Amino acid sequence: MNALRIDSNRLIKRLKDLGKVGSTGDGGCCRLALTEEDKAGRDLVTGWMRELGLHVTIDAIGNTVGVWQVGSGRPVMMGSHIDTVRTGGIYDGNLGVLAGLEVIETLQRAGVTPRRPLAVAFFTDEEGARFAPDMLGSLVYVGGLDLAAALDTVAIDGARLGDELQRIGYAGAASCPAVEAPHAFVELHVEQGPRLEVEGQRIGVVTGVQGISWKELTILGQSNHAGTTPMALRHDPAYAAAAIAVFLRQLAAELGGDQVCTVGKIDLFPNLINVVPAQAVLTLDVRNTDEQRLQQAEARIDAFCRDLAETEGVQLQFRTLARFAPVVFDPRVDEVIETVAGDLGLSTLRMPSGAGHDAQMLARLCPAAMIFTQSHRGVSHNPAEYTDPTNLAEGCNVLLHTVLRLADTDFV
Amino acid sequence: MNALRIDSNRLIKRLKDLGKVGSTGDGGCCRLALTEEDKAGRDLVTGWMRELGLHVTIDAIGNTVGVWQVGSGRPVMMGSHIDTVRTGGIYDGNLGVLAGLEVIETLQRAGVTPRRPLAVAFFTDEEGARFAPDMLGSLVYVGGLDLAAALDTVAIDGARLGDELQRIGYAGAASCPAVEAPHAFVELHVEQGPRLEVEGQRIGVVTGVQGISWKELTILGQSNHAGTTPMALRHDPAYAAAAIAVFLRQLAAELGGDQVCTVGKIDLFPNLINVVPAQAVLTLDVRNTDEQRLQQAEARIDAFCRDLAETEGVQLQFRTLARFAPVVFDPRVDEVIETVAGDLGLSTLRMPSGAGHDAQMLARLCPAAMIFTQSHRGVSHNPAEYTDPTNLAEGCNVLLHTVLRLADTDFV
Repeated sequence: MNALRIDSNRLIKRLKDLGKVGSTGDGGCCRLALTEEDKAGRDLVTGWMRELGLHVTIDAIGNTVGVWQVGSGRPVMMGSHIDTVRTGGIYDGNLGVLAGLEVIETLQRAGVTPRRPLAVAFFTDEEGARFAPDMLGSLVYVGGLDLAAALDTVAIDGARLGDELQRIGYAGAASCPAVEAPHAFVELHVEQGPRLEVEGQRIGVVTGVQGISWKELTILGQSNHAGTTPMALRHDPAYAAAAIAVFLRQLAAELGGDQVCTVGKIDLFPNLINVVPAQAVLTLDVRNTDEQRLQQAEARIDAFCRDLAETEGVQLQFRTLARFAPVVFDPRVDEVIETVAGDLGLSTLRMPSGAGHDAQMLARLCPAAMIFTQSHRGVSHNPAEYTDPTNLAEGCNVLLHTVLRLADTDFV
Repeated sequence: MNALRIDSNRLIKRLKDLGKVGSTGDGGCCRLALTEEDKAGRDLVTGWMRELGLHVTIDAIGNTVGVWQVGSGRPVMMGSHIDTVRTGGIYDGNLGVLAGLEVIETLQRAGVTPRRPLAVAFFTDEEGARFAPDMLGSLVYVGGLDLAAALDTVAIDGARLGDELQRIGYAGAASCPAVEAPHAFVELHVEQGPRLEVEGQRIGVVTGVQGISWKELTILGQSNHAGTTPMALRHDPAYAAAAIAVFLRQLAAELGGDQVCTVGKIDLFPNLINVVPAQAVLTLDVRNTDEQRLQQAEARIDAFCRDLAETEGVQLQFRTLARFAPVVFDPRVDEVIETVAGDLGLSTLRMPSGAGHDAQMLARLCPAAMIFTQSHRGVSHNPAEYTDPTNLAEGCNVLLHTVLRLADTDFV
């Protein structure tokens, strides 16, 4: 049974067929949650589920689960999402769902019956690109967000989530939150970062998801003429913003480990060559896998900004845009993934995920973890997103043998 | 004769009357060069010139000079400009022209005849807000820009300068460049910076105009996910831009003196909280009164940027937007201004101008310098621009006695 392998051509054909739905013509696709394109993608995938004989249920927030009703007990669940960002690739999310179907088809064709049922799920609105927050469907699934509130979410285009679910026919009858937790959950996903490729490793064993602190910082200073205002008399928000961005880089180096800090957005007003700006607005994206270290980073940044404001004579206004504590995946699941990859002759790297995933929500319900495959050059949320066929097959084979072992495992 | 004083009410009435032309309703005015509003302002001022019996000539680029034909020899010229930026105040430029008229009216009413003719000029398109470059009229006046090229200048709204001059009736018959240099030139202007007010000094004796180096710097890096890209694998143009802005601040402190450095404009692409940008475009505004020190600052910045690009793995593209060498005013004229102010009991500060002025062009033709009055809080190019009546009167009295002494001086 250890010699069993998935059919990479079949997997890739499904990835490409689904990628044609909402194709942007440049190798990417756009299936924003609960749009016509999303409906078409959902119809295609549920059709494949039914072709494999899976029992399909749709819940009240549109999460869709296909169960291969074999063995006994609660199912081992695979899955991810099939909505995309506006300029999405064809791998993000889709791989985790279609690999689940491929695992089941491989087992069915080989006549191998797992000890427990296997399920494949796709969760609604993981990207958050049309309805905030992201990971909305899996968040409701695990009871982290009230269903009624979720249905009342308004899209960036003004549509109500509940109405859109009804419109596309995916307001299902199954109850949400889920009444029964899966036995375990495993999500195969492209890394969306460069580490595996740079370090020459085949499989990422994902140990958790980084905690995220997102803040917007508005700096109010004194607009002045760039030629006539002596340096000592300036209250320059652009300088303050720059000093903060440089501090974030130094802080990440000093804290080391998984700590990342990013200033990706800076807006100056009036933003003219010869005017010391009146105002700067910048964003601070700070992530760590360790909550205490994340809080330490936040406190250090806060202190730096306040000292700087005092010295420069500028005012600060902080606004928290998002704050998620780190998620730690189940080490027992990670160990299975690592062992399986080793048995398949694939090198592994234990690593955190820098991005959010449905698996972090499922981790509240059951033993859960993730498998990463390489992302070429780390490119993600982009039509140029790419993972080569060998990597796709390797990731899917790790998923196959991981779920078989999880089906044989009784967690105590 | 040393007891002679201008009439500040008369001066302020003319400032307010001219400020009504193109009024923006918030205390400011908008008379972009060669628009209908500029024509109305020119008509008002030339009307006042004629009321004072001045001989008015208009040259081929629209520079307008009113001469009080008394005494003998070449005239002592006062003046500035009456065009404004889109959100201009009522003092910038206008003060230097209307103070010139006030000086002449004061002398006429007192029956005082200077030894040389006195002239008041307003030069076309000093602000450069509609037609680039700024100080265009005075630049052509001193032979620094070919007349035909200047007439072919196209406005930001697509109009041709020569056509606009014809349209508003200010394409004059007088030749330009000027055939005869003035005996001397003195421009009274609001400081447009905070130094006089902060240092509690009444009169700025302007020793020159800072040299200006304007560059645009494009930094090309690698766009990446802010969560999934380890710090060590980043090529972050936003960080590079920030580090350069911080370096400019440090460099100004290190070089000291009149050195000012400003990053007033930063544009990141795509400018999103969770994306390491692909590109940053920022501007570098570097000024010094000393050409060698300015070159030294430019070289230091260049070296810093190239080292940084190497370390961070980003590409740089520099584009020079403007480069003017510093201008040194005539120390003999400055000495007269300083002596006169002292005789009037006014404290003085020798200082460079951080902004460009018509006087720096006239300095190529004849002994020239400038007198600064306080700008409240240094606010300039803004409807809130303000100089109090006492300051206006003091500046105008210094101008009065300065031109009288210059008319008595034979430069050798």
